[in-house]
Amino acid sequence: VFVHDNRVALAGVKNLPNSTLNEISQDVVKVITNHHSAIVSSRDFHPNDSIIKTNHSIIGGNHFIFMAGPDSIESAEHVLEMGRQVKAAGATILRGGAFKPRTSPYSFQGNGEVGLKAHRAAADELGMDMITEILDTRDVDLVDSYTDIFQVGTRNMQNFALLKALGQKRKPVVLKRGMSATIDDLLNAAEYIAAGGNTQIMLMERGIRTYDNKYTRNTIDVSAIPVLQSLTHYPVIADASHAAGVAKFVTPLALAATAAGSQGLMTEIHDDPEHAFVDGAQALTPEAFSQLADKVRKIHDIVAHDNSEY
Amino acid sequence: VFVHDNRVALAGVKNLPNSTLNEISQDVVKVITNHHSAIVSSRDFHPNDSIIKTNHSIIGGNHFIFMAGPDSIESAEHVLEMGRQVKAAGATILRGGAFKPRTSPYSFQGNGEVGLKAHRAAADELGMDMITEILDTRDVDLVDSYTDIFQVGTRNMQNFALLKALGQKRKPVVLKRGMSATIDDLLNAAEYIAAGGNTQIMLMERGIRTYDNKYTRNTIDVSAIPVLQSLTHYPVIADASHAAGVAKFVTPLALAATAAGSQGLMTEIHDDPEHAFVDGAQALTPEAFSQLADKVRKIHDIVAHDNSEY
Amino acid sequence: VFVHDNRVALAGVKNLPNSTLNEISQDVVKVITNHHSAIVSSRDFHPNDSIIKTNHSIIGGNHFIFMAGPDSIESAEHVLEMGRQVKAAGATILRGGAFKPRTSPYSFQGNGEVGLKAHRAAADELGMDMITEILDTRDVDLVDSYTDIFQVGTRNMQNFALLKALGQKRKPVVLKRGMSATIDDLLNAAEYIAAGGNTQIMLMERGIRTYDNKYTRNTIDVSAIPVLQSLTHYPVIADASHAAGVAKFVTPLALAATAAGSQGLMTEIHDDPEHAFVDGAQALTPEAFSQLADKVRKIHDIVAHDNSEY
Amino acid sequence: VFVHDNRVALAGVKNLPNSTLNEISQDVVKVITNHHSAIVSSRDFHPNDSIIKTNHSIIGGNHFIFMAGPDSIESAEHVLEMGRQVKAAGATILRGGAFKPRTSPYSFQGNGEVGLKAHRAAADELGMDMITEILDTRDVDLVDSYTDIFQVGTRNMQNFALLKALGQKRKPVVLKRGMSATIDDLLNAAEYIAAGGNTQIMLMERGIRTYDNKYTRNTIDVSAIPVLQSLTHYPVIADASHAAGVAKFVTPLALAATAAGSQGLMTEIHDDPEHAFVDGAQALTPEAFSQLADKVRKIHDIVAHDNSEY
Repeated sequence: VFVHDNRVALAGVKNLPNSTLNEISQDVVKVITNHHSAIVSSRDFHPNDSIIKTNHSIIGGNHFIFMAGPDSIESAEHVLEMGRQVKAAGATILRGGAFKPRTSPYSFQGNGEVGLKAHRAAADELGMDMITEILDTRDVDLVDSYTDIFQVGTRNMQNFALLKALGQKRKPVVLKRGMSATIDDLLNAAEYIAAGGNTQIMLMERGIRTYDNKYTRNTIDVSAIPVLQSLTHYPVIADASHAAGVAKFVTPLALAATAAGSQGLMTEIHDDPEHAFVDGAQALTPEAFSQLADKVRKIHDIVAHDNSEY
Repeated sequence: VFVHDNRVALAGVKNLPNSTLNEISQDVVKVITNHHSAIVSSRDFHPNDSIIKTNHSIIGGNHFIFMAGPDSIESAEHVLEMGRQVKAAGATILRGGAFKPRTSPYSFQGNGEVGLKAHRAAADELGMDMITEILDTRDVDLVDSYTDIFQVGTRNMQNFALLKALGQKRKPVVLKRGMSATIDDLLNAAEYIAAGGNTQIMLMERGIRTYDNKYTRNTIDVSAIPVLQSLTHYPVIADASHAAGVAKFVTPLALAATAAGSQGLMTEIHDDPEHAFVDGAQALTPEAFSQLADKVRKIHDIVAHDNSEY
Repeated sequence: VFVHDNRVALAGVKNLPNSTLNEISQDVVKVITNHHSAIVSSRDFHPNDSIIKTNHSIIGGNHFIFMAGPDSIESAEHVLEMGRQVKAAGATILRGGAFKPRTSPYSFQGNGEVGLKAHRAAADELGMDMITEILDTRDVDLVDSYTDIFQVGTRNMQNFALLKALGQKRKPVVLKRGMSATIDDLLNAAEYIAAGGNTQIMLMERGIRTYDNKYTRNTIDVSAIPVLQSLTHYPVIADASHAAGVAKFVTPLALAATAAGSQGLMTEIHDDPEHAFVDGAQALTPEAFSQLADKVRKIHDIVAHDNSEY
Repeated sequence: VFVHDNRVALAGVKNLPNSTLNEISQDVVKVITNHHSAIVSSRDFHPNDSIIKTNHSIIGGNHFIFMAGPDSIESAEHVLEMGRQVKAAGATILRGGAFKPRTSPYSFQGNGEVGLKAHRAAADELGMDMITEILDTRDVDLVDSYTDIFQVGTRNMQNFALLKALGQKRKPVVLKRGMSATIDDLLNAAEYIAAGGNTQIMLMERGIRTYDNKYTRNTIDVSAIPVLQSLTHYPVIADASHAAGVAKFVTPLALAATAAGSQGLMTEIHDDPEHAFVDGAQALTPEAFSQLADKVRKIHDIVAHDNSEY
């Protein structure tokens, strides 16, 4: 049973007899039966935007947040230098992977705890928040001892054991949409975290898998942004880097996501994309990121008040 | 054989021996073998943006065009009034359907030539261009006698007989992307028109079919906009109305398409959406369209020079 | 209003008041409101399998039919020789294209009326039925003067002008499923033909477009076969050639379609696949087709009575 | 570096200079560069079918295996009774879930270790192999202490931490294809297990996510069966229950998968589908399963020798 003000949802109750409903539903209470199952995550029970506050960032509502950094933590010096440059461009959250989910087992799998340490040190020195991906329930406490924000990747969106473990933490979680996850799948995955009591959740659109990936790696579904904002109170953020897959299309996709109402952007950057350990093809240079951020801020100013319409 | 400046493409020639290539390729000529087949449509052979000029509109390059109007021509009075309102908001092209491609044969199929006449009269009175959909090769001359711009709908994108017939005309054609057409399919469909000598072509992204259509009718593929602009010289325009399928999501999708670099928008409007003959659910009111147009112009100003990057 | 025995459907009537329903629905009549729109095509109004009889074939019910031949009519001699061989293997319907819908305008477009003549002559000499594709409403009478069965290709499944024109004929039509057509889209397209009075319709599954086409050209949706048979009374046939796109996978897909309940197969064959004018990669040799047909007959014997379960 | 007989693959080496290749490639060694990354799993390096032997089953090659049982372990009595009935129909492997990956956190999540115990006891009493799903790396040893075969579900196909953990075991693993996994994704996921030294792998086609799920829950991709068999030496098995989602379509899909060359079937059965804890809609009754198994054996006899063609 979920209650908000005068609204009550009975999870799992699909067909309450009308007679019973009439008894319950009086002026003070509105019973919602047959509600979709992601109840804690629903705007019906939390009409206002959720705002997430970290040490260095305010996320949600009309705030706009930049998460940027290298795909993987390559070295302490490199992540620090990349962090310095993205901070200068306006980013407050430093991204970077220590555990990398690679399609092939023979590809570089990340630097592990060495990477986490370098990432933490860079974030501390720069006064930024740290976000990094978690792949394994057995690593939750380890990653928790370093990061400010957990990231769940597209391949683990329905790794329910991992979601439950993160639901026991009280730290923000970025949940990336699965490659072919429906809107409802994504909301239910978020509900796995929320059901454990952790409602500091951000949802991330990062491109879906469609029938054409010749020119872009995935198809960014910008419509998911306003649709999710109409259904849930969590901040919705876009990752144009993985959506595009090639640097030259990252900027138009990031601008599009912003215009659609995205409340933030995650962007991969690298000062030497050709020699990046992972996904160099889609990395922006720090200069390109800085130019992107300028345009994003202008577009966000035009569309920001739109969020409140949902 | 296609030639542009010092570039030559040999259609259908996939593997020219290197020895032959070396003989041909001297300083004055660059032979491109294994080029994709949409050669006339390719930016390789027409590096600059194509600009299409009609009586009342300039389309392409950094120009931005609004095509708006009712889904179907309901009456002479109605299309005139709708035209008046979209013109006030900045539209120069009046859209409206006289022949409607409906999923069911028992749905309203359009008012036919009566609709064409009313549409033409409204466009003339208002000083706007007329665009309407053509469904049948047997109607090409009839529609040609009324319209300024032909529209080929998503279901006919690979109706090659129709495309060939339009290739024989010398009037602009808007070619909507098929529901599951790849980028290459769309370029090849355009090439069917171009091969007949008619290169006044606009390509339109209108949402593709994906695995989730619970909240929107289609999934708008904004990445198609910069991808197409990188491959072809034709103007690329977006139809957010059919992509969204519901009015409340038309605006964010239209803004996103603009931010991605769209060179125009087609939008369905209706003053009484609930009683529209066709697709009322996705129609904006004239007021909502006017507000949308204001934001679109601001975003276009921010991103417009990006087009030249491709 | 559609009536079958004691069932009545009111097309377009979605919400008849219960009080009205109670008045109408008496023992003798069952009113079906909110029925999907493909009413003539529905098994609800035609519970038994439709059987289509041509000069040389009985199609539908527990009968199994082979349509085979070259992709395109290359010459009078060639189609005659191919026909002779597929007839020996059990085919009664000779396929071949005179008008070819090619992705690129620069690909071979078919031999036109010359091809139709050669095709007709071969079918007559061999005592087979002729089936060929129609692309253009303007060609309906021409093609009608040669063929026994019309074929509507995947790209024209929602070419409603063409479907309407074929609805005016009284000859069988094979309607191929569109590349991303839903089951309901296909039924509604069939209804366009049926609404004109022509109910000699066969539906053909030929592979849909999905996110993976690296190893096969399309993804054959064998589930469409029993699903369609449960919803409509028309024969359902499969084209494993276009689904596979490569010869080595045609046989397993054809066997799978047969096991799923397909009431026939369309197969492309060629005695010299490498030099076929069109789609040689997916053509079976006549010998391979003969071996395939033997296995198909055995599997059909095992599953044939299943059709009656729907 | 991977070696099989006279073939050598250099993983990660994309462009070895021809001069180097010529030096290496002599009569005794064939160097394969640019091989796809799933090398241990590739038929290029293991040309013959892998055969997996368990206590009660022989899997792979021309053998055909039935895995059947309830979706979830409901009680010790129930799983024993269901096992008795599926064994009578020919199944040698008893399936059942103790940890259930449910879309919503509020749905029944399985009976956990209590379920594992009941499952093990039933398998032992009946002389069957046990297969059950594993969701969490932390449960690998627990599940290992009960089961004969691990099952990795569609949502965890790219849970690389889990795959690596199973690669350290020496027990067979059934790896289900992800909902939108490409063939290459599936092979690479299998390679994660194989890279750890565990090559007792079965691949399972269970239906993919496409644009139409109105009548079936997923779209079974039967072409994946021969395609996978051409690329890898692992047994390929089909799950028609999850593909269909409704009982009435399970049989035709299972027959189709068999005809396409599947080397086994996983089927959910329940004696009282309406009251099943999970997924009752798609469960066959034991009687229906028995009839299905009879037809499957007949079809397998017709197509079995086809496997050797790849």
